[in-house]
Order: sequence, then C-alpha cells, then structure tokens
Amino acid sequence: MYRSHTCGELSENNINQEVTLAGWVQKSRDKGFMIWIDLRDRYGITQLIFDEERTASDLMEKAKNLGREFVIQIKGTVIERTSKNPNIPTGNIEVLVTELNVLNNALTPPFTIEDETDGGDDIRMKYRYLDIRRNPVRENLIFRHKVTMAVRNYLSEKEFVEIETPYLIKSTPEGARDFVVPSRMNEGQFYALPQSPQTFKQLLMVGGMDKYFQIVKCFRDEDLRADRQPEFTQIDCEMAFVEQEDILNTFEGLTRHLLKEIKGVEIGEFPRMTYDEAMQRYGNDKPDIRFGMEFGELNKVTQHKEFGVFNNAELVVGIAVPGANSYSRKEIDKLINWIKRPQIGALGMVYVRCNDDGTYKSSVDKFYNQEDLAKWAEATGAKAGDLICVLSGEILKVRTQLSALRMEMAERLGLRKNNEFAPLWVVDFPLLEWDEETKRYHAMHHPFTSPKPEQIELLKTNPGEVKANAYDLVLNGNEIGGGSIRIHDKKTQAMMFDYLGFTPEEAKEQFGFLMDAFQYGAPPHGGIAFGLDRLVSILGGQETIRDFIAFPKNNSGRDVMIDAPAAIDNTQLQELCLKLDTKA
Amino acid sequence: MYRSHTCGELSENNINQEVTLAGWVQKSRDKGFMIWIDLRDRYGITQLIFDEERTASDLMEKAKNLGREFVIQIKGTVIERTSKNPNIPTGNIEVLVTELNVLNNALTPPFTIEDETDGGDDIRMKYRYLDIRRNPVRENLIFRHKVTMAVRNYLSEKEFVEIETPYLIKSTPEGARDFVVPSRMNEGQFYALPQSPQTFKQLLMVGGMDKYFQIVKCFRDEDLRADRQPEFTQIDCEMAFVEQEDILNTFEGLTRHLLKEIKGVEIGEFPRMTYDEAMQRYGNDKPDIRFGMEFGELNKVTQHKEFGVFNNAELVVGIAVPGANSYSRKEIDKLINWIKRPQIGALGMVYVRCNDDGTYKSSVDKFYNQEDLAKWAEATGAKAGDLICVLSGEILKVRTQLSALRMEMAERLGLRKNNEFAPLWVVDFPLLEWDEETKRYHAMHHPFTSPKPEQIELLKTNPGEVKANAYDLVLNGNEIGGGSIRIHDKKTQAMMFDYLGFTPEEAKEQFGFLMDAFQYGAPPHGGIAFGLDRLVSILGGQETIRDFIAFPKNNSGRDVMIDAPAAIDNTQLQELCLKLDTKA
Repeated sequence: MYRSHTCGELSENNINQEVTLAGWVQKSRDKGFMIWIDLRDRYGITQLIFDEERTASDLMEKAKNLGREFVIQIKGTVIERTSKNPNIPTGNIEVLVTELNVLNNALTPPFTIEDETDGGDDIRMKYRYLDIRRNPVRENLIFRHKVTMAVRNYLSEKEFVEIETPYLIKSTPEGARDFVVPSRMNEGQFYALPQSPQTFKQLLMVGGMDKYFQIVKCFRDEDLRADRQPEFTQIDCEMAFVEQEDILNTFEGLTRHLLKEIKGVEIGEFPRMTYDEAMQRYGNDKPDIRFGMEFGELNKVTQHKEFGVFNNAELVVGIAVPGANSYSRKEIDKLINWIKRPQIGALGMVYVRCNDDGTYKSSVDKFYNQEDLAKWAEATGAKAGDLICVLSGEILKVRTQLSALRMEMAERLGLRKNNEFAPLWVVDFPLLEWDEETKRYHAMHHPFTSPKPEQIELLKTNPGEVKANAYDLVLNGNEIGGGSIRIHDKKTQAMMFDYLGFTPEEAKEQFGFLMDAFQYGAPPHGGIAFGLDRLVSILGGQETIRDFIAFPKNNSGRDVMIDAPAAIDNTQLQELCLKLDTKA
Repeated sequence: MYRSHTCGELSENNINQEVTLAGWVQKSRDKGFMIWIDLRDRYGITQLIFDEERTASDLMEKAKNLGREFVIQIKGTVIERTSKNPNIPTGNIEVLVTELNVLNNALTPPFTIEDETDGGDDIRMKYRYLDIRRNPVRENLIFRHKVTMAVRNYLSEKEFVEIETPYLIKSTPEGARDFVVPSRMNEGQFYALPQSPQTFKQLLMVGGMDKYFQIVKCFRDEDLRADRQPEFTQIDCEMAFVEQEDILNTFEGLTRHLLKEIKGVEIGEFPRMTYDEAMQRYGNDKPDIRFGMEFGELNKVTQHKEFGVFNNAELVVGIAVPGANSYSRKEIDKLINWIKRPQIGALGMVYVRCNDDGTYKSSVDKFYNQEDLAKWAEATGAKAGDLICVLSGEILKVRTQLSALRMEMAERLGLRKNNEFAPLWVVDFPLLEWDEETKRYHAMHHPFTSPKPEQIELLKTNPGEVKANAYDLVLNGNEIGGGSIRIHDKKTQAMMFDYLGFTPEEAKEQFGFLMDAFQYGAPPHGGIAFGLDRLVSILGGQETIRDFIAFPKNNSGRDVMIDAPAAIDNTQLQELCLKLDTKA
C-alpha cells in the first residue's frame, strides 16, 4: 500500500504520528525558506510542509520542483498547524515531510483542477479523466453510486430480484431507432441493442418472477437533442399480480425512501393528477408543481368582445406571473420576442398589469374594460402586482407555449428551487396518439400497454379517447419514471398490434414469442422504468445529466476522449459480410 | 393487489383466516367428491381444496376444468390439513376455496414444470419463460441476485464506487474479436461493444477515483465453445496507490465474505502458488486443489533404461490415482482410449498397479523392475491400492494431457465435491506468450499489464521468461478472477506496444488517449475482474453457467426464444450506409 492514511482523514488526534500519504499536488506555495503543498486525493486535501530549519536541503530542493498534478508519495510527521483552516476537515494539522517520492510526473493540465475550472465543455470532455479529478464531478459520480445502492437495497428488501436481461436482442422497427450489431456467425443477420428490456421483463412475469428490477443500460439511435445520450441507464421494474394502485404505492415508497435517505427530505403522500387535468392546469404532462402560475382558461371571459384574435381561438389561456407588474414595457417586449422565437412559436402575447391600486392596464384596453379584466384576474388567480400573460390559438399548441412561458418565468423568479422536491403522479394517459406524419395512431407509451378495460369497446369508434392504465412519476417538472399495466392475453395484444398498423405477419415475426408466452399462463402484470441519469441529476439538484455520467457522449454521439465511433478494418467488415455504402 | 398472501407463507398461525391467493395450477387431483389443487407461485405451493360437502357445485365444476399452468386467483379459508406434508412449509394447512377467478388460461406446456423436467435443452431454451417457472432455474436466478447484492454491499462498504462505463466504445483489433455497432450519425464509422471496461477503469484511476468497481456486461465475438456466451458479466474492479499484495488481500476478503455469507463456509488464508509451480504440480494454471493426485516428475527415475518412449521424452510425469488398482484391464484400456481421443491427444499411457502386498505390476515390466517402480511410487506419492498413470512427451502437451486425466479421475472418484471450496491464488504469470500462428508474442493477460519491474531489462533478451505482476483467483479448478498491476507511465506502455508488434502509429491511434492520460499524473494502479456467471455457478455448486443466466444464447450465439439475430429492414441498412456482402 502506498499510503497509511488518505488525504481526508488526519486531524489533531494524529499529531506526532508518522504517516505515509499519496496523492496529487493540488498547489504549492514556495516562500523560499518554507514550502507548503496541498496534497489531494479522492478523500480530501492535506497540507504538507517543508521547512528550511527542519527539512533536509535536498528534500527542500526536490519539493521545489514539484509541479501541479504530480503524483507523489510522502512520509512525515503530523504536526499542529499554526494558522488553522476551519474550512476543511484536515485544517488543524499539516504533515512535516521527511521523505518524498515522485510516483509520476504530470504535464501542465489543459484546465485548472478546481471546483470552478477555466476549462470549457469540449476540452473537459476530451480530458474527462482530468475533469473527474475535480470535486464537483467526482462527487456527482459518488452520489450516483449512493443512489443506485439505495435503490438496490430498498427493492431487494422488498423481495425484488435483479435479473440481467440480454443486450444482444432483436431489432423491432416500432418506436425509436435501434442500434444494430451485425452477427458474424449468422451471416447477414443482426442483433439489436435494447431500447429497454420491456419484452424480457414481461417474459419474466410469465416465468413467475413476480418482482423484477434491473439497473440497466438502454440504447436509442435518435438524433440527439441537448442532454440526451445514445446510451442511458434505467431502473427497470416489473411486478405480477398487481394493479396500477400497487405499482404506484410500491414506487412512491421507493422514491420517498430515496428523498429521505439521500436528501433528508420527508414527503407525504404524492399528489396525483390525470393527464387531462395536467394538460389543462399546466399545459404539460410533467408539470413542475413547486410553484403556482396555474393556467386560467379565459374563453368565456374574453370571447364576447370585438377582439377577433381571441374570438377565433380554440383556447384563450393565461397565467398570473407573481410580482411581474414591475416589468418595464421594454422587458415585456423582450418577453414577447422570447415567446415568438421559432422554438416556442407563439404569434403574440396579450398582457394585463395588475396595479397596486386594484386597477388593470392591459395591452388590449381597446377591447376590454376593468370589469372584464377583473374576471381575467379571477380566472388566473392574479393579485395586485402580478402580470397576467395570455396566449391564444389551437389548444395543444397554445398550452405548450404557455407552459414554456410558465417555466421560463419560474426560472427567472427563482421559483425552481433545487433543494425543494415536488413529486407528482400523472395518471390516465391516452393509450394512443395520432401521428400527423404517418397518418396513423402510435402507442403513446408502448404497444404492450393495456387500455382501460372498460374502454376497450371505445377503441373501435374513438381510439384517440381511450385512456390507458399508464402513469408517469414527475419530479420538479421532469418525468423521472413512467410505466403501465400491460396486456397479458394474446387476443388483446393481437388487437392492439392491429390498431397500430401491424399486419398479423409482422406482429408474429417481431413479437410472436411474447404472444406465444401469453398463451401459457401469463399473470396480470405491470411495471415502471425510471431514467436513472435524470433521477440522479434532479436529486443532485442539477439539470444536466451529463454531469452525472462518467464518460458521456457529445451531441453527435461521439466520445471525444477515445475518439469513437471510428473506422474499422476491412477484414472486420469482410468477416461480417458487410460493405460500406454511400448515403442514398 | 391480486393476493393477500403468497403461496409460501401460510401456516397453522393463519388457520380460520380468509385469504386471497394467486398463482399457477401446479397439479390437481380430482376424486369426484373432492378436488385438491396445488397452487404455485415464486414463494411456494399451497394446497387448495374443493369439497362436495362444503363447496358450491358450480365452483366444484369450475375447479374441475382447471388445467395445468392456468393462472387463477382464489379466496378461501385456511384450514388444518388432515394428512400433513412435512416436506413443504405450508404442509400443515390447506385453503378451502370459496371463490375462484381464472386470470388466464394456459395451453399444455411443452414440458413439465417440475424440478426434474422431461424437456430437453432446446425446447427449454425456446420456452425459457416456462423453464424459469421451475424451482431450480428460479432459485439459480435468485441466488445470482443474492451474490451480486453481497458483492455490491461488501465493496461499497469498503469505499469502492460503482461507476458505469460506456458500452459504445472503439474497436481495437488486439485480443478477441469485437462486436461492432455501425453509427448512423457518423457515416462509415463504428462503435464497438466493450470486451471489458479495461481502459476506462484505468482512466478512472488517472481521474483519482481510487476504488472502482462495476458489475457489467462484456462482449466477445468468439467462436463459441460449450459454456461460453457472447455476452457475459464481470465484476470489474480497480484500485490506485496499491501493490499486488493489496489487491490480493482486498479481493481475498471479498471472496471469503461471499463464501461465508452465501455458503456459510469459513475459509482461512488462501494458499498461493506461482504459475510455474502450478504448471509443474498440476499441469494447469487453474488447478483444482480440493484433492491431491499431484504430478510426480519421473524423468530421473525412468530415463536410465531401454524404454525409448521415455528416454526421448522432454517430460515423463505421472499421478497416483487413489484406489484405482481395482480397475480391470478392460477399464484401463478404456481409460487409455479416452486419453487418446483427439480432444486430449495423448499417444498412450503407461500404468503401474500398486498391489496391496507392496508389489508393483506395470505395463512396462519389460523395462523396469520393482525397485524402479518403487521410485515411481515415491515420486507420485502412490500407496498400496493406487494406480499410477504415466504420460510422456513435450512438456506443455503432456502436462495438459495429464491434467485432463487428473480431472477426469477426480470426477469419477467423486473428489470434486460441490459443497467443498478450495480457493487458490496463482501468481507470477508470464507477461507474454508466444503465438505459433502469428510468430510473435501476445500479452498473456493484456497489453496494459506491468512486467515485474526488476525484469524489464530481461524483456530485450528473453521476453518469454519475463513474469508479470499478474494473478488469477482459482476456485475449485476454475479461474474465477484474474488481474494485474498495470503500467502507469507512457514510456513503458509504448515499449510494451512495441514488443507486441504495434507500430507507434497504431498504438497512438488505438490507445493514444490512454498514453496521453498517463502523462497527466497517473497513479500506480491495478485491478481484477471476476467472471460473475462462473463465480455464481461454482458457488451454486454447479458447472454450467447457462443455468445461472436468465436468457442465455446457444452455441451459435442465437437466442432461440426471440429468434435473434435476424435480418433487418433495407431502410435500416441504408440509413447506416451499409450493404450486405457475401462471404469472401
């Protein structure tokens, strides 16, 4: 062992002790007659001291030549510090060095290894191994480990069994794009990497393993949006002989446990909201309920005047932004420009200032009087000092736009507090969603989700209205988990594939094994999957999942550190019976 | 919830209680006036009873129609059994059914769902979800979970951090063949699936995460031998600021903990043996030391007579098989045929019967007298009643052959007891091994393994003699873990790549990121990786890893249940800029 102690554990209790430490040179201060070095490892920083009067001159010389990030091993005596540092656990002591051994040199790092670094994203990713030396990154990774251990121990104590499902499976064109893996031993054939272990966990239920979980990598070959990774980690769970209520309770328990164990936050029963209600009240199926600004629908109180924009709108809806009456005209104009950007795409915004004297001043005073505006204030819950922002247009679009505005205003007002946790179950998701592009229905969750049993008949006449026993767990405006009760009989599953546009042959080819399995005694079952990267980052009080992944990929799916993907040898291609082609 | 209790928990304490159970019909006995059904779930079996006198006739009728593996839910009252079954925990009670709800029908399963099934391997794999319902398979999977939880909690308590490394990495032609993954977003380029997270865990050491582990899937596109899987699971570990001794101690601790926690077996310090010694004493670098039959080298006591076979042999070596003097001439001939099979390839075998009266009878009595044979007995440790088996030829070949014979005889004699555990560290592995085919040296462990520092000079003159700080943990004749101290400076690593036949350009292209990292302050480090599938199967007292994998692949790398790999759509190929080619 290269050390007797870590750099984080020495204190007054160790004074006069001979110790051996190893670590990295964080920084050194050379006063000529005295040299101090901060020695860093994963556990902390310990100050080393070399002193003309007490240190041999060749050792002084050696110490002078140590550069940043050199790896050294020292022996020395723990002594009391004259000027103590109360900010670090080892701040009361230092080590008077008697022996110094350089274990490895270091080039000057391309960015500073400090909590706040001068390195940009790209350089930090290229030298991720140096980035990981920084406290915030290291602590995020340790935090992630802590969360996964808590998840595993909690579920394991509840008799869940972690079972590994295969990574080399079969490609199914439904849903997102698969990564595929050519098989050398089976010429012209391909495996696919799993987008989730969905069918396997259902087969485990058929196999009688009634409580399954797995923390598992999943893969999606999608065009990457910011903060998406081609490989991501799920906490994948499934239970048999359960109804929706059982799943919600079980995983509410898990989430409550994590909040308590990891964050010390005690939270009671999680509120629940239907999808329809969430859309109506927040314009969003994953509302952040840490703050208000609920939607007030204004059709009734706006569509009786001459204002054509509103009269022609499917939906007129507003929010009261607390205290934003103080916004200047210029600031409001900037806000309107913000919401008109193509990413959001609103055509404009009507606003009402709620003055302290109880009067209103709106951008549409030409059409609406104080009495009208008072009704708007009532519908949006606006108080004196607030600013009512009103959008109008097609229901879906305008809800999305206003939701974006609500989140933006919350951000600006500091209402999205990262030490506050507001979980929410959103339930009764629609079974299907209409896809304009392909002109057919897609499964909103996935094709294995069970429609509400009482609505199966409705599928024939109004498929878009059918709800599913599908649910999302939302935390602070992020979907951290989602799942459903599954279909567990062949007939319903075949019908569902039919509705989704599969021919019977396609259904059989792709999912025949599952439908076969349903014939041999499949129990009722359902489950949920949590996005671990997201969950960890929210619990960690941050928004970027990349900060919680040891070796993330960039937005082009590249690992810039190892420079992957890359070309492969021709012999490899030949063995796989593949040829490169050019883009069609 | 579909049940108030599981099928494994009811006992006398529940008598008169109303319960709801759900599960599978294991079997039913219909006496006309009385029907018993064994209801099965993951937790056990509970006997249900329907009885003319106490059960409504329509319910009797319904019960009569239940087939094997139907999924049912029942309500009923726990009553005392008249004829108790002491073999199962619920054997003292039965449930008098008052309500029966068929949750799902089942076709007759293609094999019996019993501990001993009538299903062959192929059919069981095709219907693996039914196979998993069988106790032995289910228990293996739960056992695996128990082992991984014990590993994780042990390492976590020792301050190891589980860190996920990427699955989409870069292909390196060194070593086994990679599975590759074409990148759609990077035309003509490929990711590779990791054969192990080797370079990433080393980068984590450079990053200061001084104790890392990960239970992780790894991939090798090799021609599959029996009991190899293209995807397999490792317990991958690495530590910084350690020497070999620290790693051996740490993971000996883990293994000892597992043996105690999982098997209740207490084992003291693990013996250690050098690679050379293991080869000499057992002809094998992973000797099973649960039994003796150590090799006795016989060159000295055989090569002074007229027996040309021995005189011309590089090595003459024998083992004393305990009690095998009782083998008939015919049995010995069969044994000789066994060892001459091409899989083993011995040219013949000389044997000596050690008679109870202290005399010897050998197959080469023409050349050797009693005095000679007594020396053979001494060298092999043979006692009266034993059979000495002697092989001769080239050192490496003959050792491998005799080792195979030793294992076979141990198997026949019942010496490979699966409830006995004999761990062993094999250390000082050679750094390189000569490959006849490519006429160059390959890294025996991998190219990141450090030569013994004092032998670096020897690399230039006698590379084959250089030993590494590389070690295997052997359990009952199986390598369950292997690792090494790594190179941690650029110069040595570059030199090693040079010895292994890399041009500087190739080394830079493939492993430049690692050598760069070594320049920025890499600490000394080393690690180990355990084969989880193997470890679990040995702890479970079995030899076949497939029995401990939920969804294994067959020897052609196929998943016969889901029928993967399979052809993919042309559009998928086009998006990936690939064309199918025919085998060259």
